[in-house]
Amino acid sequence: MSERTQVGILGAGPAGLLLSHLLHRAGIESVVVDTRTREEIEQTHRAGILEQGSVDVLVESGVSDRVLREGRVHEGIDLRFGGTSHRIDFAGLVGATTTLYPQTEVFVDLADARERDGGDVRFGVREGRVADVTGDRPVLSYVDGAGTAHTVGCDVVVGADGSRSETRRAIPGLRRYSREYPFAWFGILTEAPPSAEELIYARSPHGFALISQRTDDLQRMYFQCDADEDPSAWSDDRIWSELQARVAGDDGLELRQGPIVERTVLPFRSTVSEPMRHGSLLLAGDAAHTVPPTGAKGLNLALADVRVLAEVLERALGPAGRDALDDYTPRALGRVWKAQHFSYWMTTMLHTAPQDTDFDERRRLGELAMVTGSTAGSTYLAEAYTGWPGLR
Amino acid sequence: MSERTQVGILGAGPAGLLLSHLLHRAGIESVVVDTRTREEIEQTHRAGILEQGSVDVLVESGVSDRVLREGRVHEGIDLRFGGTSHRIDFAGLVGATTTLYPQTEVFVDLADARERDGGDVRFGVREGRVADVTGDRPVLSYVDGAGTAHTVGCDVVVGADGSRSETRRAIPGLRRYSREYPFAWFGILTEAPPSAEELIYARSPHGFALISQRTDDLQRMYFQCDADEDPSAWSDDRIWSELQARVAGDDGLELRQGPIVERTVLPFRSTVSEPMRHGSLLLAGDAAHTVPPTGAKGLNLALADVRVLAEVLERALGPAGRDALDDYTPRALGRVWKAQHFSYWMTTMLHTAPQDTDFDERRRLGELAMVTGSTAGSTYLAEAYTGWPGLR
Repeated sequence: MSERTQVGILGAGPAGLLLSHLLHRAGIESVVVDTRTREEIEQTHRAGILEQGSVDVLVESGVSDRVLREGRVHEGIDLRFGGTSHRIDFAGLVGATTTLYPQTEVFVDLADARERDGGDVRFGVREGRVADVTGDRPVLSYVDGAGTAHTVGCDVVVGADGSRSETRRAIPGLRRYSREYPFAWFGILTEAPPSAEELIYARSPHGFALISQRTDDLQRMYFQCDADEDPSAWSDDRIWSELQARVAGDDGLELRQGPIVERTVLPFRSTVSEPMRHGSLLLAGDAAHTVPPTGAKGLNLALADVRVLAEVLERALGPAGRDALDDYTPRALGRVWKAQHFSYWMTTMLHTAPQDTDFDERRRLGELAMVTGSTAGSTYLAEAYTGWPGLR
Repeated sequence: MSERTQVGILGAGPAGLLLSHLLHRAGIESVVVDTRTREEIEQTHRAGILEQGSVDVLVESGVSDRVLREGRVHEGIDLRFGGTSHRIDFAGLVGATTTLYPQTEVFVDLADARERDGGDVRFGVREGRVADVTGDRPVLSYVDGAGTAHTVGCDVVVGADGSRSETRRAIPGLRRYSREYPFAWFGILTEAPPSAEELIYARSPHGFALISQRTDDLQRMYFQCDADEDPSAWSDDRIWSELQARVAGDDGLELRQGPIVERTVLPFRSTVSEPMRHGSLLLAGDAAHTVPPTGAKGLNLALADVRVLAEVLERALGPAGRDALDDYTPRALGRVWKAQHFSYWMTTMLHTAPQDTDFDERRRLGELAMVTGSTAGSTYLAEAYTGWPGLR
């Protein structure tokens, strides 16, 4: 079956759905397809921290204001080292906050909004593909549940199909920049009350730990582990003793324990693909770049891509014409490389790598003293964490 | 021959002489010995940038105000990357400046001041040593030019004898933290007019270069080279073409060339020795720590040690008693590790290492964009470069 739309989007995660939503508001038609079902995507537990600008785009573009009611506003984070807490006061330093609101809730809000507004989102297809991307008549194709092949003729196609992106392969001579890290995160969900109001980023001689939250009864916690760690080999007791050791300090901080209901190992990798546009194909979100989770930038970067992309597409499909597409890669990459650096910085400042010497360990404590002991240093971190004022 | 003083100081470089000067002002006697002659030390060309606090201590303690007349005040530096200059405005951001005033002039001022005030400084001795440092009757010993052995009984002895310190060996169980860098600096002195008013720290695909000044007719320039580079193997033409390539940019910046009258390769290494005090022995300056030259911290850190040490000694040799010596290591190390981090940060942000990937290169451009594009980031750098407001 053959049909037409203006923008064909492969991938119905937050990036693809937000793009479809913003385009709809600008009067531009789109079709979104995803090989996963809506239920499968809802089961994907990922990031949980939204920058101010991410909250703003959800609310101001009319996706939903549920994030304002159910999200938990964090006015700062706690950098913990040398057994002591050092708060970075986002609200006081840069007048911005972050919001704890899991990625799955962002997805639900977006999927509901698209349904509410009559959006064309086709979950659970097979063989989603883009073709003819070099010219100005690209094609989005897939096979539906009944086995019928579909092609959708488009003006542009967007690859929002995640870190294992298929669409990316359609870009000849794509450059992939990447960096591996010699560790990973061991993540748990535990049925326990919160141990802190805000996120604790803890550096200790035992390694890094992140104490996060989910709800009043469910908490997310992570600790640095070997890249090839097998989570099933760890007893609950061993997990708790590792976490407690990494946050232990002079103030007697102790994590509130509960049953561990999920455990997983998150890989660490930084990647950037360039360019983010080739002909009529544009990449957004994880399809173009991934960051290690330390800076909480992955989802925010995807939504930031989409805000730029929606604006570029509105111009390119209007009187400005397709030349406007040229703006996308440079505008998006400016933020991407800042976010890559910030994620790398937070990661290397807070983790211990196997090849680290005593000098590295002591130097990093000097760095943490420089950052937390200086209003400018704390502000520099705060503006990056909350999403750069000039790029909001 | 045997005699007594309160403080025996091994090393008559800027650290040893400033300490002797400050102690004199506090009514404390000292004897300074150095195995080099005054003329040899005057020939040592080293650092050239003084932090605000370093200028202040020279002027306010009455060493000399020549630095105010002959030093060149720099109100900022130029971070140059992507072929464009980005000024970090120290004066505007943190209300502080740096002063270009070569280390050899600081030494001359201090040596003159000690002579003026009747200070006891003995240059050109042999076999300068400290002994009996564990108890409270340490000894400074040396052999004079006529071959006569001298011992000076002291209340405390200070090792200000440079990076190859002999005195350091008297500390049992001393911990040495260190880091090597896979590159060095190729430094030249050229008889040419200045190419810029302030220092240019240039990062380019060819590597790092630093454009500095000395006088109206003599300039200091450096560029990153291999650690085992042989400076005599380079023609003047090749040196100039390497320097020009590293500062080249959109604005057509070109260095003003002249005869190259000195060339040298500066090694890169970070070291810290802990503790900085053992019994009656205290270390100051390069004897305790060395930094790579990128952050211009070496001389400033030595003078900062001495300011703390003079204050600690004044208390320890007064009513407070020797327990006051306990304060020295922790107070001095706070600044040392910040300076170590800052020197490491400036070095790694601006240089290219052999193992660097394309990702590292692009990430660092993202970092430089973060620092120069943010008032907070620029301020964070400026306050470190000018010497931390709280530690001034």
